[in-house]
Amino acid sequence: MPSEVVTAAVLVIGDEILSGRTKDKNIGYIADYLTAIGIDLKEVRVVSDEEPAIVEALNALRARYTYVFTTGGIGPTHDDITADAVAKAFGVGIDFHPEAMALLKARFAGNPDELNEMRRRMARVPLGGSLIKNGVSATPGFRMENVFVMAGVPSIMQAMLEDIAPKLKRGRVVHALTIGARVAEGAIAGALARLQADHPSVAIGSYPFYRPDGFGVQLVVRGTDLELVEGAAAAIEQMLRHAGAEPERLSP
Amino acid sequence: MPSEVVTAAVLVIGDEILSGRTKDKNIGYIADYLTAIGIDLKEVRVVSDEEPAIVEALNALRARYTYVFTTGGIGPTHDDITADAVAKAFGVGIDFHPEAMALLKARFAGNPDELNEMRRRMARVPLGGSLIKNGVSATPGFRMENVFVMAGVPSIMQAMLEDIAPKLKRGRVVHALTIGARVAEGAIAGALARLQADHPSVAIGSYPFYRPDGFGVQLVVRGTDLELVEGAAAAIEQMLRHAGAEPERLSP
Repeated sequence: MPSEVVTAAVLVIGDEILSGRTKDKNIGYIADYLTAIGIDLKEVRVVSDEEPAIVEALNALRARYTYVFTTGGIGPTHDDITADAVAKAFGVGIDFHPEAMALLKARFAGNPDELNEMRRRMARVPLGGSLIKNGVSATPGFRMENVFVMAGVPSIMQAMLEDIAPKLKRGRVVHALTIGARVAEGAIAGALARLQADHPSVAIGSYPFYRPDGFGVQLVVRGTDLELVEGAAAAIEQMLRHAGAEPERLSP
Repeated sequence: MPSEVVTAAVLVIGDEILSGRTKDKNIGYIADYLTAIGIDLKEVRVVSDEEPAIVEALNALRARYTYVFTTGGIGPTHDDITADAVAKAFGVGIDFHPEAMALLKARFAGNPDELNEMRRRMARVPLGGSLIKNGVSATPGFRMENVFVMAGVPSIMQAMLEDIAPKLKRGRVVHALTIGARVAEGAIAGALARLQADHPSVAIGSYPFYRPDGFGVQLVVRGTDLELVEGAAAAIEQMLRHAGAEPERLSP
């Protein structure tokens, strides 16, 4: 059933993330978004604003996954080099896209002088690319084959994702159930490993937490078959009670 | 001056980040930390809890950068496979580390029965590895050559970073100055590109923002020579005033 598995990678382009100046908010948002529509995010990379780094990462990711989503580097300034890097990665030229230019001209219709050379750069799209629109900004992103090039500003990126989503193949949605308990992860690790072995069609993750009010663990069961997920979750709850801990079903 | 450039990568190991369930807090923290001590974070990857994915990413990164910092997957449960993956990446065996086992035994001295088989797994370290201690948990991370294997829980990861930091080569610290202005990025993009060309020893980044109270841009000048950074920042402020915008020097 190959059509049921749809994979993706995210490529974050930005020195500001690597320097720590900006804390990324896009990875988690895209991860939630893709999971909800049945697309399996398999890898994320963050690279600097350097063309060779972008080209290499993009070519590695686009060959490997169904889709690649990039964020960052599509503005009007000299450090916005994503479009050129994508053209280079695909081995194609780059030129002003008529539709993108029309959007920019409409945006600056009242002040055509403001549509300066640097702003016009934002209408440059690798040859063969199609636009990704958004309701927030006049600057579109673009799609090249299985690569979606989006803005880095979260509100704009999120609007672009809405434009993209209807065009994506969707896989089977992964259901997740989370069970919390006030128990040390290490105390139940053996029983949990046996449960995982007994339920090979689901993935059981164990995430300990340490909070001022005490420690505990959250156990997450994930799988595409809700019945199997429910079955494994019930078995985990039974195991926890057997271990003297009170399981608490948390929202996924 | 090769000793002045110290580079690093972060490898986040965790399905929970890729599914969106957990929002990563370690990348930004490590980025800030490394920047402050003169280490240039060049790349971040997030991969799933699958051995081939971990091995491939680790081998790519450790060959390319001075240091690699991994987070996640070193607990006692079946989904904690980082130590085995690191051993495989280095092509070495893995065994119980006497010092790690001593730490665990001390931790469970009052209840030796609780030091079960799964908890003992946490003392397994690839052959040749040395421990990374932390004041929060009895479970150490470990170092293999230029790779530092740390916990995923932020408080423990941060404590491990304190143990590691004194052992790291440090490069020249990158100074950063940030100038904010209530001006459209596109309006100053041309002048900014010329400024960048005139100040090749610094990197000028432009980060637009859109907030309920209006839009604007933050311009960040980065470089190892503070005098050159200051000079470029002053030139940017002059350029902004010339463009009719009031520059505001923000804390880096």
